[in-house]
Amino acid sequence: MAGAWIAIDWGTSNFRAWLINDKDVLDKRSANCGLLHVGQGQFDATLKTLLGDWLTHAAPVIVMAGMVGSQQGWHDVDYCPIPAGVDSLISRSKYFITSWGSEAWIIPGLRQSSSGEIPDVMRGEEVQLLGLALLAGLDDFQAILPGTHSKHARVRQRQVTDFSTYMTGELYHLLLAHSLLGRALPEAVEDESAFLRGVNVARRDQPLSQLLFSARTLRLSGELPASSVGDYLSGLLMGAEFTTDYSGQIWLVGSAALTRRYQLAATACGVQTRCIDGDRCFIAGMQSLQHQLTEKRNGQF
Amino acid sequence: MAGAWIAIDWGTSNFRAWLINDKDVLDKRSANCGLLHVGQGQFDATLKTLLGDWLTHAAPVIVMAGMVGSQQGWHDVDYCPIPAGVDSLISRSKYFITSWGSEAWIIPGLRQSSSGEIPDVMRGEEVQLLGLALLAGLDDFQAILPGTHSKHARVRQRQVTDFSTYMTGELYHLLLAHSLLGRALPEAVEDESAFLRGVNVARRDQPLSQLLFSARTLRLSGELPASSVGDYLSGLLMGAEFTTDYSGQIWLVGSAALTRRYQLAATACGVQTRCIDGDRCFIAGMQSLQHQLTEKRNGQF
Repeated sequence: MAGAWIAIDWGTSNFRAWLINDKDVLDKRSANCGLLHVGQGQFDATLKTLLGDWLTHAAPVIVMAGMVGSQQGWHDVDYCPIPAGVDSLISRSKYFITSWGSEAWIIPGLRQSSSGEIPDVMRGEEVQLLGLALLAGLDDFQAILPGTHSKHARVRQRQVTDFSTYMTGELYHLLLAHSLLGRALPEAVEDESAFLRGVNVARRDQPLSQLLFSARTLRLSGELPASSVGDYLSGLLMGAEFTTDYSGQIWLVGSAALTRRYQLAATACGVQTRCIDGDRCFIAGMQSLQHQLTEKRNGQF
Repeated sequence: MAGAWIAIDWGTSNFRAWLINDKDVLDKRSANCGLLHVGQGQFDATLKTLLGDWLTHAAPVIVMAGMVGSQQGWHDVDYCPIPAGVDSLISRSKYFITSWGSEAWIIPGLRQSSSGEIPDVMRGEEVQLLGLALLAGLDDFQAILPGTHSKHARVRQRQVTDFSTYMTGELYHLLLAHSLLGRALPEAVEDESAFLRGVNVARRDQPLSQLLFSARTLRLSGELPASSVGDYLSGLLMGAEFTTDYSGQIWLVGSAALTRRYQLAATACGVQTRCIDGDRCFIAGMQSLQHQLTEKRNGQF
């Protein structure tokens, strides 16, 4: 497998890797081995263990994205300021050689810091946005990348020009695990109408810190079954993401299960969406970056 | 102390009691002994222990308010629907005799459930609102009662006509204790400008789930010291309470430390406020209720 290379999404909580030859994924693996689980100075050794037999007969090129490029990661790779396209990502990628001789790159994240605006950052999603542009053949689009920290991004002429973060996933888990709203809940039962009710309540012109309490009072008043509180909260938090004025189609980039829920919320808010698999986008973005990074390195030497 | 009686605020986390003779507080005590710490069927025995020597020579009248009247409390005392004034509270109070012979009442909470509106509930704050009306000699006013679940209430002709809950205090503690925003924070240093910056950011017309992430990105970008993240979050969450349109003066009912912070936030939002001690209001409200409850009982028998 002379041409095989490895794409890695290494985040705070999780590690995912794909072994790729040309355009084919030969193998993939994942582990609960995000940054939080890696000791200081242990990234090289940890990666060698995680990749295991993929390294037996070769030292494949490795391209990484995500929090692995943060201050708490392997190398601190500074964010690209936006607007940023593939050229900025390539020119600011960190290049190094692993202990077993693989050439490795870490893709930088993006930073939004227009004056007067609240700064914002992403790491990893920029690769998915690039992949989406390539797969859909689009220069201009809007996308939502749901997750622990959901990202809303706008791309113009293949440059990320604007983005913002919603703490949707993290708030959902926090509230269920640690707040009064999640106390003594029975096992969840899927309840689409509770989800849509949450979406609807989110559209009220009231702060989320007030609206969230309705998950308690609707349960107390018998209007919301305790087993549906999770779906209601999920709708409330996702719905809040669609209170911004949106026109035109929005791409939803993620797993089928998650993008389908976002699509339900979006439709209820009159927002037109289209779903695409997040891993497909990540791999397509990484392929393009790997190709250009190795081309550039060949040109340089 | 023939005329002495006991006022109790018994909530989910805390227990507070005042021994009162006529208008004088003779003694007070508090304990981390809220509902969560009381075993099933143990309220009578727990109260006897908590009150201790107050019961040595007498079986004083006891008037209680707060979550002690909830489903998880001593007796499940149904909420009064609003609009509600002192007559509704009196007529729906739960009367019983303790094992040591004290006459006891539990004051009901209030329920808001106008059709089409999100229901809301309070337990304990209705006594403070009554006390405030008496102390300030007001029939009509607006008040905010900050806390784990901050209450905003409107009183017209001495009837609570409208109220809503903000999860300000609970969200603040959740985010600092369990979210990415609170991770690896040094000891907090008081920072009024960070607090006011948070208040200001809260006024942006964007959902709180988005604005909260700024506590992360401002820290990452070096614009917010890690030791000020708590004050910034506090400003952001309190500021969200003033995004509602307010006209006229608002009473802030609580401890001096907390109402002062709310007053800072309110002033920054152009809202005129006046602070009053929450315990004074509670005791004044309880005095009036105790007087009328015992009068009514004397009339009945």
